[in-house]
Amino acid sequence: MTENWIDEYHLGVRYGLQGKVLIQEASDVQEITVIESVRYGKGLLLNGCWMTTEYQEKQYHECLVHPALCSAAEIKKILVIGGGDGGTARECLKHKEVQHIDMIEIDNRVIELSKEYLPSIGGNAWNDPRLHLTIGDGIAWAANAENNSYDVVLVDGSDPIGPAEGLFNKTFFENCKRILKPNGIFATQSESPEAFQQIHIDIVRLIRDVFNYSDPLYGWVPIYPSGWWSWTFACIDAPRYLNPLKKRASVISDQCEIWSPRWQKGAFQAIPAFLEREFEK
Amino acid sequence: MTENWIDEYHLGVRYGLQGKVLIQEASDVQEITVIESVRYGKGLLLNGCWMTTEYQEKQYHECLVHPALCSAAEIKKILVIGGGDGGTARECLKHKEVQHIDMIEIDNRVIELSKEYLPSIGGNAWNDPRLHLTIGDGIAWAANAENNSYDVVLVDGSDPIGPAEGLFNKTFFENCKRILKPNGIFATQSESPEAFQQIHIDIVRLIRDVFNYSDPLYGWVPIYPSGWWSWTFACIDAPRYLNPLKKRASVISDQCEIWSPRWQKGAFQAIPAFLEREFEK
Repeated sequence: MTENWIDEYHLGVRYGLQGKVLIQEASDVQEITVIESVRYGKGLLLNGCWMTTEYQEKQYHECLVHPALCSAAEIKKILVIGGGDGGTARECLKHKEVQHIDMIEIDNRVIELSKEYLPSIGGNAWNDPRLHLTIGDGIAWAANAENNSYDVVLVDGSDPIGPAEGLFNKTFFENCKRILKPNGIFATQSESPEAFQQIHIDIVRLIRDVFNYSDPLYGWVPIYPSGWWSWTFACIDAPRYLNPLKKRASVISDQCEIWSPRWQKGAFQAIPAFLEREFEK
Repeated sequence: MTENWIDEYHLGVRYGLQGKVLIQEASDVQEITVIESVRYGKGLLLNGCWMTTEYQEKQYHECLVHPALCSAAEIKKILVIGGGDGGTARECLKHKEVQHIDMIEIDNRVIELSKEYLPSIGGNAWNDPRLHLTIGDGIAWAANAENNSYDVVLVDGSDPIGPAEGLFNKTFFENCKRILKPNGIFATQSESPEAFQQIHIDIVRLIRDVFNYSDPLYGWVPIYPSGWWSWTFACIDAPRYLNPLKKRASVISDQCEIWSPRWQKGAFQAIPAFLEREFEK
Protein backbone atom coordinates (compact mmCIF):
# COMPACT_ATOMS: atom_id res chain seq x y z
CA MET A 1 0.00 0.00 0.00
CA THR A 2 1.19 3.54 -0.72
CA GLU A 3 2.20 5.02 2.59
CA ASN A 4 1.09 8.58 3.01
CA TRP A 5 0.44 10.59 6.13
CA ILE A 6 -3.04 11.57 7.19
CA ASP A 7 -2.82 14.47 9.65
CA GLU A 8 -5.14 16.46 11.86
CA TYR A 9 -4.02 20.08 12.16
CA HIS A 10 -4.83 22.11 15.28
CA LEU A 11 -3.27 25.39 16.45
CA GLY A 12 0.21 24.88 15.02
CA VAL A 13 0.34 21.19 15.98
CA ARG A 14 -0.25 18.19 13.76
CA TYR A 15 -0.85 14.54 14.60
CA GLY A 16 -0.59 12.09 11.75
CA LEU A 17 -0.96 8.40 11.08
CA GLN A 18 0.93 6.67 8.28
CA GLY A 19 -1.49 4.94 5.96
CA LYS A 20 -3.84 5.52 3.08
CA VAL A 21 -7.25 7.05 2.52
CA LEU A 22 -9.91 4.45 1.66
CA ILE A 23 -12.95 6.70 1.37
CA GLN A 24 -13.42 10.44 1.34
CA GLU A 25 -16.88 11.86 0.83
CA ALA A 26 -19.19 14.67 1.83
CA SER A 27 -22.35 13.49 3.57
CA ASP A 28 -25.30 15.85 4.13
CA VAL A 29 -23.71 16.79 7.45
CA GLN A 30 -19.93 16.72 7.16
CA GLU A 31 -16.83 15.46 5.38
CA ILE A 32 -16.13 11.82 6.21
CA THR A 33 -12.78 10.11 5.72
CA VAL A 34 -12.03 6.44 6.29
CA ILE A 35 -8.36 5.49 6.35
CA GLU A 36 -6.23 2.44 6.87
CA SER A 37 -3.27 3.11 9.15
CA VAL A 38 -0.14 1.09 9.86
CA ARG A 39 -0.34 1.65 13.62
CA TYR A 40 -4.02 1.50 14.59
CA GLY A 41 -5.84 -0.27 11.75
CA LYS A 42 -8.73 1.44 10.03
CA GLY A 43 -9.80 4.84 11.26
CA LEU A 44 -12.43 7.56 10.87
CA LEU A 45 -12.07 11.32 10.53
CA LEU A 46 -14.93 13.84 10.45
CA ASN A 47 -14.16 17.26 8.96
CA GLY A 48 -10.47 16.36 9.11
CA CYS A 49 -10.50 15.53 12.85
CA TRP A 50 -9.62 12.12 14.23
CA MET A 51 -12.67 10.37 15.65
CA THR A 52 -11.69 6.76 16.20
CA THR A 53 -9.51 3.88 15.04
CA GLU A 54 -9.89 0.12 15.37
CA TYR A 55 -7.03 -0.33 17.82
CA GLN A 56 -7.31 2.87 19.78
CA GLU A 57 -10.94 3.36 20.63
CA LYS A 58 -11.28 1.82 24.09
CA GLN A 59 -9.39 4.79 25.59
CA TYR A 60 -12.43 6.84 24.65
CA HIS A 61 -15.45 4.55 24.84
CA GLU A 62 -14.71 2.81 28.14
CA CYS A 63 -14.02 6.15 29.82
CA LEU A 64 -17.29 7.74 28.71
CA VAL A 65 -19.49 4.74 29.44
CA HIS A 66 -18.41 2.83 32.55
CA PRO A 67 -18.02 5.63 35.11
CA ALA A 68 -21.70 6.36 34.36
CA LEU A 69 -23.09 2.85 33.90
CA CYS A 70 -21.24 1.39 36.88
CA SER A 71 -22.43 4.16 39.17
CA ALA A 72 -26.04 5.15 38.31
CA ALA A 73 -28.78 3.78 40.60
CA GLU A 74 -30.42 1.92 37.70
CA ILE A 75 -29.35 1.46 34.08
CA LYS A 76 -32.44 0.08 32.39
CA LYS A 77 -32.98 2.88 29.89
CA ILE A 78 -30.09 4.78 28.29
CA LEU A 79 -29.93 7.67 25.84
CA VAL A 80 -26.86 7.93 23.59
CA ILE A 81 -26.55 11.10 21.51
CA GLY A 82 -24.03 10.71 18.69
CA GLY A 83 -21.77 7.69 18.87
CA GLY A 84 -22.21 6.70 15.21
CA ASP A 85 -19.21 4.35 15.22
CA GLY A 86 -21.10 2.09 17.64
CA GLY A 87 -18.43 1.90 20.35
CA THR A 88 -20.47 3.63 23.05
CA ALA A 89 -23.48 1.38 22.43
CA ARG A 90 -21.21 -1.69 22.50
CA GLU A 91 -19.79 -0.75 25.90
CA CYS A 92 -23.27 0.01 27.30
CA LEU A 93 -24.57 -3.37 26.14
CA LYS A 94 -21.89 -5.19 28.16
CA HIS A 95 -24.13 -4.37 31.14
CA LYS A 96 -26.90 -6.96 31.29
CA GLU A 97 -29.15 -4.65 33.31
CA VAL A 98 -29.46 -2.40 30.24
CA GLN A 99 -32.89 -3.06 28.65
CA HIS A 100 -33.26 -0.25 26.13
CA ILE A 101 -30.87 2.18 24.44
CA ASP A 102 -32.11 5.07 22.34
CA MET A 103 -29.23 6.11 20.10
CA ILE A 104 -29.69 9.31 18.11
CA GLU A 105 -27.04 9.84 15.43
CA ILE A 106 -27.33 12.76 13.03
CA ASP A 107 -25.35 11.26 10.14
CA ASN A 108 -26.49 7.95 8.67
CA ARG A 109 -23.33 7.73 6.52
CA VAL A 110 -21.17 7.58 9.66
CA ILE A 111 -23.12 4.52 10.73
CA GLU A 112 -23.04 2.90 7.29
CA LEU A 113 -19.31 3.44 6.86
CA SER A 114 -18.56 2.33 10.43
CA LYS A 115 -20.50 -0.90 9.88
CA GLU A 116 -18.64 -1.52 6.63
CA TYR A 117 -15.07 -0.50 7.55
CA LEU A 118 -14.95 -0.55 11.37
CA PRO A 119 -17.22 -3.47 12.28
CA SER A 120 -15.21 -4.37 15.40
CA ILE A 121 -16.05 -1.03 17.02
CA GLY A 122 -19.82 -1.56 17.01
CA GLY A 123 -19.39 -5.31 17.40
CA ASN A 124 -22.66 -7.04 18.20
CA ALA A 125 -24.34 -3.79 19.17
CA TRP A 126 -25.82 -3.32 15.70
CA ASN A 127 -27.73 -6.61 16.00
CA ASP A 128 -28.69 -6.32 19.66
CA PRO A 129 -32.49 -5.90 19.99
CA ARG A 130 -31.94 -3.58 22.96
CA LEU A 131 -30.42 -0.94 20.62
CA HIS A 132 -33.00 1.43 19.08
CA LEU A 133 -31.34 3.60 16.48
CA THR A 134 -32.81 6.88 15.20
CA ILE A 135 -31.16 8.98 12.51
CA GLY A 136 -31.88 12.52 13.58
CA ASP A 137 -31.04 15.48 15.73
CA GLY A 138 -30.03 14.60 19.29
CA ILE A 139 -30.67 18.16 20.46
CA ALA A 140 -34.30 17.98 19.32
CA TRP A 141 -34.63 14.49 20.83
CA ALA A 142 -33.48 15.81 24.22
CA ALA A 143 -35.89 18.76 23.91
CA ASN A 144 -38.84 16.47 23.17
CA ALA A 145 -38.22 13.49 25.45
CA GLU A 146 -40.34 13.00 28.57
CA ASN A 147 -39.30 14.20 32.02
CA ASN A 148 -37.38 11.66 34.17
CA SER A 149 -37.32 9.09 31.38
CA TYR A 150 -33.67 7.96 31.24
CA ASP A 151 -31.37 6.37 33.80
CA VAL A 152 -28.28 7.54 31.94
CA VAL A 153 -27.73 10.16 29.21
CA LEU A 154 -24.44 9.91 27.28
CA VAL A 155 -23.26 12.53 24.78
CA ASP A 156 -20.72 11.12 22.34
CA GLY A 157 -20.35 14.02 19.92
CA SER A 158 -17.53 15.68 18.02
CA ASP A 159 -15.94 19.08 18.72
CA PRO A 160 -18.29 22.01 19.40
CA ILE A 161 -17.78 23.40 15.88
CA GLY A 162 -20.09 22.28 13.10
CA PRO A 163 -22.90 19.77 13.68
CA ALA A 164 -22.06 19.15 17.35
CA GLU A 165 -22.10 22.82 18.41
CA GLY A 166 -25.57 22.59 19.97
CA LEU A 167 -24.44 19.77 22.25
CA PHE A 168 -22.50 22.24 24.37
CA ASN A 169 -24.95 24.90 25.51
CA LYS A 170 -27.11 25.54 28.55
CA THR A 171 -30.49 24.78 26.97
CA PHE A 172 -29.26 21.38 25.86
CA PHE A 173 -27.79 20.56 29.28
CA GLU A 174 -31.03 21.70 30.96
CA ASN A 175 -32.98 19.31 28.77
CA CYS A 176 -30.57 16.50 29.59
CA LYS A 177 -31.17 17.16 33.30
CA ARG A 178 -34.93 17.30 32.79
CA ILE A 179 -35.14 13.94 30.99
CA LEU A 180 -32.78 12.25 33.46
CA LYS A 181 -34.12 10.39 36.48
CA PRO A 182 -33.14 12.05 39.79
CA ASN A 183 -30.80 9.15 40.63
CA GLY A 184 -29.35 8.92 37.12
CA ILE A 185 -26.08 10.11 35.58
CA PHE A 186 -25.34 12.45 32.69
CA ALA A 187 -21.98 12.26 30.89
CA THR A 188 -20.39 13.98 27.92
CA GLN A 189 -16.97 14.11 26.34
CA SER A 190 -15.66 17.54 27.33
CA GLU A 191 -12.64 18.12 25.06
CA SER A 192 -8.95 18.47 25.85
CA PRO A 193 -7.87 20.51 28.88
CA GLU A 194 -4.78 21.39 26.84
CA ALA A 195 -5.67 21.72 23.14
CA PHE A 196 -9.18 23.09 23.82
CA GLN A 197 -8.53 24.60 27.21
CA GLN A 198 -11.08 27.42 27.25
CA ILE A 199 -13.78 25.24 25.67
CA HIS A 200 -13.14 22.57 28.31
CA ILE A 201 -13.43 25.13 31.12
CA ASP A 202 -16.63 26.57 29.63
CA ILE A 203 -18.24 23.13 29.29
CA VAL A 204 -17.47 22.15 32.89
CA ARG A 205 -18.76 25.51 34.18
CA LEU A 206 -22.00 25.27 32.16
CA ILE A 207 -22.70 21.74 33.38
CA ARG A 208 -22.02 22.81 36.97
CA ASP A 209 -24.48 25.66 36.55
CA VAL A 210 -27.18 23.23 35.47
CA PHE A 211 -26.61 20.11 37.59
CA ASN A 212 -26.25 19.83 41.36
CA TYR A 213 -23.11 17.70 41.20
CA SER A 214 -20.55 17.59 38.41
CA ASP A 215 -16.87 16.72 37.96
CA PRO A 216 -14.47 16.31 35.05
CA LEU A 217 -12.46 13.12 34.67
CA TYR A 218 -9.11 13.13 32.84
CA GLY A 219 -7.69 10.44 30.57
CA TRP A 220 -5.87 9.79 27.32
CA VAL A 221 -6.93 9.49 23.70
CA PRO A 222 -3.59 9.62 21.84
CA ILE A 223 -5.19 10.32 18.42
CA TYR A 224 -7.00 13.44 19.72
CA PRO A 225 -5.29 16.85 19.92
CA SER A 226 -2.65 16.75 22.71
CA GLY A 227 -3.66 13.18 23.66
CA TRP A 228 -5.00 14.56 26.94
CA TRP A 229 -8.77 14.27 27.08
CA SER A 230 -11.70 14.78 29.47
CA TRP A 231 -15.22 13.60 30.11
CA THR A 232 -17.59 15.36 32.48
CA PHE A 233 -20.13 13.57 34.65
CA ALA A 234 -23.12 15.10 36.40
CA CYS A 235 -25.85 14.06 38.84
CA ILE A 236 -28.95 15.47 40.47
CA ASP A 237 -29.27 13.76 43.87
CA ALA A 238 -25.64 12.93 44.79
CA PRO A 239 -22.21 12.67 43.08
CA ARG A 240 -22.89 9.03 42.26
CA TYR A 241 -20.25 8.94 39.50
CA LEU A 242 -17.55 8.92 42.18
CA ASN A 243 -18.60 5.51 43.48
CA PRO A 244 -18.78 2.62 41.00
CA LEU A 245 -20.96 -0.22 42.31
CA LYS A 246 -18.95 -3.36 43.02
CA LYS A 247 -21.60 -5.67 41.64
CA ARG A 248 -21.51 -4.12 38.18
CA ALA A 249 -17.78 -3.35 38.14
CA SER A 250 -16.83 -6.94 38.87
CA VAL A 251 -18.80 -8.20 35.87
CA ILE A 252 -17.21 -5.94 33.28
CA SER A 253 -13.71 -5.34 34.71
CA ASP A 254 -12.13 -8.28 32.93
CA GLN A 255 -13.42 -7.05 29.58
CA CYS A 256 -11.89 -3.57 29.95
CA GLU A 257 -8.48 -2.34 28.81
CA ILE A 258 -8.47 1.08 30.43
CA TRP A 259 -11.39 1.41 32.84
CA SER A 260 -11.32 -0.11 36.32
CA PRO A 261 -12.77 1.16 39.61
CA ARG A 262 -9.22 2.16 40.61
CA TRP A 263 -8.59 3.99 37.33
CA GLN A 264 -11.93 5.81 37.67
CA LYS A 265 -11.11 7.00 41.18
CA GLY A 266 -7.69 8.21 40.05
CA ALA A 267 -8.94 9.90 36.88
CA PHE A 268 -11.37 12.10 38.85
CA GLN A 269 -8.51 13.18 41.14
CA ALA A 270 -5.86 13.72 38.44
CA ILE A 271 -6.96 17.27 37.75
CA PRO A 272 -4.03 19.57 36.99
CA ALA A 273 -3.41 22.32 39.54
CA PHE A 274 -4.22 25.20 37.16
CA LEU A 275 -7.68 23.74 36.45
CA GLU A 276 -8.39 23.03 40.12
CA ARG A 277 -7.69 26.72 40.79
CA GLU A 278 -9.74 27.79 37.74
CA PHE A 279 -12.81 25.85 38.88
CA GLU A 280 -12.56 27.25 42.42
CA LYS A 281 -13.04 30.80 41.09
CA MET B 1 9.24 33.34 9.60
CA THR B 2 9.04 30.45 7.15
CA GLU B 3 6.55 28.00 8.58
CA ASN B 4 7.64 24.45 8.22
CA TRP B 5 6.74 21.41 10.24
CA ILE B 6 9.20 19.74 12.57
CA ASP B 7 7.98 16.21 13.30
CA GLU B 8 8.98 13.31 15.51
CA TYR B 9 8.26 9.97 13.83
CA HIS B 10 7.49 6.88 15.92
CA LEU B 11 5.92 3.58 14.79
CA GLY B 12 3.71 4.96 12.04
CA VAL B 13 2.69 8.04 14.02
CA ARG B 14 4.06 11.56 13.72
CA TYR B 15 3.69 14.57 15.99
CA GLY B 16 4.74 17.90 14.55
CA LEU B 17 5.01 21.52 15.56
CA GLN B 18 4.75 24.31 13.03
CA GLY B 19 7.82 26.49 13.17
CA LYS B 20 11.40 26.73 12.01
CA VAL B 21 14.73 25.15 12.86
CA LEU B 22 17.12 27.57 14.56
CA ILE B 23 20.08 25.26 15.16
CA GLN B 24 20.88 21.74 14.06
CA GLU B 25 24.22 20.25 15.02
CA ALA B 26 25.91 17.02 16.02
CA SER B 27 27.49 17.13 19.45
CA ASP B 28 29.92 14.43 20.61
CA VAL B 29 26.91 12.55 21.98
CA GLN B 30 23.89 13.13 19.75
CA GLU B 31 22.13 15.27 17.18
CA ILE B 32 20.70 18.43 18.74
CA THR B 33 17.97 20.57 17.17
CA VAL B 34 16.63 23.84 18.53
CA ILE B 35 13.42 25.10 16.96
CA GLU B 36 11.03 27.98 17.31
CA SER B 37 7.40 26.86 17.22
CA VAL B 38 4.18 28.80 16.81
CA ARG B 39 2.40 26.93 19.59
CA TYR B 40 4.93 26.31 22.37
CA GLY B 41 7.78 28.79 21.79
CA LYS B 42 11.32 27.49 21.43
CA GLY B 43 11.92 23.78 21.72
CA LEU B 44 14.62 21.13 21.85
CA LEU B 45 14.92 17.79 20.04
CA LEU B 46 17.64 15.18 20.62
CA ASN B 47 18.17 12.63 17.84
CA GLY B 48 14.89 13.81 16.30
CA CYS B 49 12.83 13.23 19.47
CA TRP B 50 10.96 16.00 21.27
CA MET B 51 12.57 16.78 24.62
CA THR B 52 11.06 20.04 25.81
CA THR B 53 9.56 23.37 24.79
CA GLU B 54 9.29 26.69 26.60
CA TYR B 55 5.53 26.54 27.10
CA GLN B 56 5.06 22.83 27.59
CA GLU B 57 7.70 21.69 30.02
CA LYS B 58 5.96 21.85 33.38
CA GLN B 59 3.89 18.76 32.47
CA TYR B 60 7.16 16.85 32.63
CA HIS B 61 9.35 18.58 35.22
CA GLU B 62 6.77 19.10 37.97
CA CYS B 63 5.66 15.47 37.68
CA LEU B 64 9.16 14.02 38.02
CA VAL B 65 10.29 16.31 40.84
CA HIS B 66 7.51 17.09 43.31
CA PRO B 67 6.11 13.62 44.06
CA ALA B 68 9.68 12.81 45.19
CA LEU B 69 10.71 16.08 46.84
CA CYS B 70 7.39 16.58 48.65
CA SER B 71 7.46 13.04 50.05
CA ALA B 72 11.05 12.05 50.99
CA ALA B 73 11.96 12.19 54.69
CA GLU B 74 14.69 14.76 54.02
CA ILE B 75 15.69 16.63 50.85
CA LYS B 76 19.04 18.18 51.71
CA LYS B 77 21.12 16.40 49.08
CA ILE B 78 19.78 15.54 45.63
CA LEU B 79 21.27 13.75 42.62
CA VAL B 80 19.93 14.65 39.17
CA ILE B 81 21.13 12.48 36.29
CA GLY B 82 20.50 14.13 32.91
CA GLY B 83 18.18 17.11 32.92
CA GLY B 84 20.39 19.28 30.72
CA ASP B 85 17.64 21.79 29.95
CA GLY B 86 17.66 22.83 33.63
CA GLY B 87 13.95 22.31 34.33
CA THR B 88 14.42 19.53 36.86
CA ALA B 89 17.02 21.51 38.81
CA ARG B 90 14.75 24.58 38.75
CA GLU B 91 11.84 22.64 40.25
CA CYS B 92 14.09 21.05 42.92
CA LEU B 93 15.43 24.46 43.94
CA LYS B 94 11.91 25.72 44.70
CA HIS B 95 12.26 23.65 47.88
CA LYS B 96 14.23 25.70 50.41
CA GLU B 97 15.27 22.58 52.32
CA VAL B 98 17.43 21.56 49.35
CA GLN B 99 21.05 22.37 50.20
CA HIS B 100 23.03 20.62 47.47
CA ILE B 101 22.21 19.23 44.02
CA ASP B 102 24.69 17.17 42.05
CA MET B 103 23.59 17.33 38.43
CA ILE B 104 25.38 15.02 36.00
CA GLU B 105 24.68 15.79 32.34
CA ILE B 106 26.51 13.92 29.61
CA ASP B 107 26.25 16.55 26.88
CA ASN B 108 27.61 20.01 27.56
CA ARG B 109 26.12 21.33 24.30
CA VAL B 110 22.61 20.60 25.59
CA ILE B 111 23.32 22.84 28.56
CA GLU B 112 24.93 25.57 26.47
CA LEU B 113 22.09 25.63 23.94
CA SER B 114 19.43 25.45 26.68
CA LYS B 115 21.01 28.45 28.46
CA GLU B 116 21.12 30.39 25.20
CA TYR B 117 17.75 29.47 23.63
CA LEU B 118 15.59 28.19 26.49
CA PRO B 119 16.69 30.34 29.45
CA SER B 120 13.24 30.26 31.08
CA ILE B 121 13.44 26.48 31.57
CA GLY B 122 16.54 26.57 33.76
CA GLY B 123 15.54 29.94 35.18
CA ASN B 124 17.68 30.92 38.17
CA ALA B 125 18.93 27.37 38.64
CA TRP B 126 22.07 28.02 36.61
CA ASN B 127 23.14 30.76 39.05
CA ASP B 128 22.03 29.06 42.26
CA PRO B 129 25.08 28.16 44.38
CA ARG B 130 23.27 24.99 45.53
CA LEU B 131 23.55 23.54 41.99
CA HIS B 132 26.78 21.62 41.34
CA LEU B 133 27.04 20.71 37.69
CA THR B 134 29.29 17.98 36.32
CA ILE B 135 29.59 17.18 32.63
CA GLY B 136 30.00 13.44 32.57
CA ASP B 137 28.46 10.00 32.69
CA GLY B 138 25.63 9.66 35.21
CA ILE B 139 25.92 5.87 35.17
CA ALA B 140 29.56 6.05 36.30
CA TRP B 141 28.63 8.70 38.88
CA ALA B 142 26.00 6.40 40.38
CA ALA B 143 28.51 3.51 40.38
CA ASN B 144 31.11 5.57 42.23
CA ALA B 145 29.04 7.58 44.71
CA GLU B 146 29.10 6.69 48.42
CA ASN B 147 26.50 4.46 50.05
CA ASN B 148 23.47 6.26 51.56
CA SER B 149 24.65 9.63 50.33
CA TYR B 150 21.53 11.12 48.66
CA ASP B 151 18.06 11.95 49.96
CA VAL B 152 16.59 11.86 46.45
CA VAL B 153 17.89 10.48 43.13
CA LEU B 154 16.14 11.76 39.97
CA VAL B 155 16.78 10.35 36.50
CA ASP B 156 15.81 12.81 33.77
CA GLY B 157 17.12 11.04 30.69
CA SER B 158 15.95 10.48 27.13
CA ASP B 159 14.62 7.25 25.61
CA PRO B 160 16.53 4.02 26.34
CA ILE B 161 18.14 4.04 22.90
CA GLY B 162 21.46 5.83 22.39
CA PRO B 163 23.23 7.64 25.25
CA ALA B 164 20.47 7.00 27.82
CA GLU B 165 20.35 3.21 27.34
CA GLY B 166 22.40 2.48 30.46
CA LEU B 167 19.92 4.41 32.62
CA PHE B 168 17.43 1.57 32.31
CA ASN B 169 19.16 -1.56 33.54
CA LYS B 170 19.41 -3.47 36.79
CA THR B 171 23.00 -2.58 37.67
CA PHE B 172 22.20 1.11 37.37
CA PHE B 173 19.04 0.80 39.50
CA GLU B 174 20.98 -1.21 42.12
CA ASN B 175 23.52 1.58 42.35
CA CYS B 176 20.76 4.15 42.68
CA LYS B 177 19.35 2.15 45.59
CA ARG B 178 22.80 1.78 47.19
CA ILE B 179 23.56 5.53 47.11
CA LEU B 180 20.08 6.46 48.35
CA LYS B 181 19.38 6.95 52.05
CA PRO B 182 16.96 4.34 53.44
CA ASN B 183 14.23 6.97 53.87
CA GLY B 184 14.87 8.60 50.50
CA ILE B 185 13.09 8.43 47.13
CA PHE B 186 14.27 7.37 43.68
CA ALA B 187 12.40 8.56 40.58
CA THR B 188 12.85 8.20 36.84
CA GLN B 189 10.86 9.02 33.75
CA SER B 190 9.61 5.62 32.58
CA GLU B 191 8.36 6.21 29.02
CA SER B 192 4.88 6.02 27.52
CA PRO B 193 2.56 3.15 28.53
CA GLU B 194 1.16 3.43 24.99
CA ALA B 195 3.94 4.34 22.52
CA PHE B 196 6.67 2.44 24.43
CA GLN B 197 4.46 -0.10 26.15
CA GLN B 198 6.89 -3.00 26.55
CA ILE B 199 9.75 -0.71 27.56
CA HIS B 200 7.52 0.88 30.18
CA ILE B 201 6.52 -2.53 31.56
CA ASP B 202 10.16 -3.68 31.63
CA ILE B 203 11.32 -0.54 33.46
CA VAL B 204 8.64 -0.85 36.15
CA ARG B 205 9.40 -4.56 36.62
CA LEU B 206 13.15 -3.97 36.90
CA ILE B 207 12.72 -1.21 39.47
CA ARG B 208 10.33 -3.40 41.47
CA ASP B 209 12.92 -6.17 41.45
CA VAL B 210 15.49 -3.83 42.95
CA PHE B 211 13.54 -1.62 45.37
CA ASN B 212 11.19 -2.69 48.16
CA TYR B 213 8.41 -0.30 47.11
CA SER B 214 7.75 1.08 43.66
CA ASP B 215 4.83 2.46 41.65
CA PRO B 216 4.33 4.13 38.30
CA LEU B 217 2.50 7.44 38.06
CA TYR B 218 0.68 8.44 34.87
CA GLY B 219 0.40 11.90 33.33
CA TRP B 220 0.56 13.87 30.11
CA VAL B 221 3.35 15.33 28.01
CA PRO B 222 1.58 16.24 24.77
CA ILE B 223 4.82 16.65 22.75
CA TYR B 224 5.99 13.09 23.59
CA PRO B 225 4.82 10.04 21.60
CA SER B 226 1.11 9.43 22.36
CA GLY B 227 1.05 12.29 24.90
CA TRP B 228 0.56 9.68 27.63
CA TRP B 229 3.62 9.49 29.88
CA SER B 230 4.84 7.84 33.08
CA TRP B 231 7.32 8.33 35.89
CA THR B 232 8.22 5.60 38.32
CA PHE B 233 8.98 6.21 42.00
CA ALA B 234 10.71 3.83 44.39
CA CYS B 235 11.57 3.62 48.09
CA ILE B 236 13.45 1.39 50.50
CA ASP B 237 11.71 1.72 53.88
CA ALA B 238 8.08 2.55 52.92
CA PRO B 239 6.10 3.78 49.87
CA ARG B 240 6.72 7.37 50.93
CA TYR B 241 5.97 8.73 47.43
CA LEU B 242 2.28 8.10 48.04
CA ASN B 243 2.08 10.68 50.81
CA PRO B 244 3.26 14.22 50.07
CA LEU B 245 4.08 16.14 53.25
CA LYS B 246 1.67 19.02 53.84
CA LYS B 247 4.39 21.35 55.06
CA ARG B 248 6.33 21.18 51.77
CA ALA B 249 3.30 20.89 49.47
CA SER B 250 1.72 24.06 50.82
CA VAL B 251 4.85 26.09 50.03
CA ILE B 252 5.15 25.10 46.37
CA SER B 253 1.52 24.40 45.38
CA ASP B 254 0.83 27.96 44.23
CA GLN B 255 3.83 27.85 41.90
CA CYS B 256 2.74 24.67 40.12
CA GLU B 257 0.64 24.30 36.98
CA ILE B 258 0.13 20.55 37.00
CA TRP B 259 1.32 19.08 40.29
CA SER B 260 -0.79 19.24 43.44
CA PRO B 261 -1.19 16.73 46.29
CA ARG B 262 -4.57 15.82 44.79
CA TRP B 263 -3.15 15.38 41.28
CA GLN B 264 -0.33 13.20 42.68
CA LYS B 265 -2.78 10.93 44.50
CA GLY B 266 -4.90 10.57 41.37
CA ALA B 267 -1.98 10.01 39.02
CA PHE B 268 -0.77 7.00 41.04
CA GLN B 269 -4.28 5.49 40.87
CA ALA B 270 -4.99 6.25 37.18
CA ILE B 271 -3.29 3.09 35.98
CA PRO B 272 -5.10 1.55 33.00
CA ALA B 273 -6.67 -1.85 33.64
CA PHE B 274 -4.40 -3.75 31.24
CA LEU B 275 -1.29 -2.53 33.06
CA GLU B 276 -2.73 -3.26 36.50
CA ARG B 277 -3.28 -6.85 35.31
CA GLU B 278 0.18 -6.97 33.67
CA PHE B 279 1.93 -5.91 36.89
CA GLU B 280 -0.02 -8.45 38.95
CA LYS B 281 1.47 -11.33 36.93
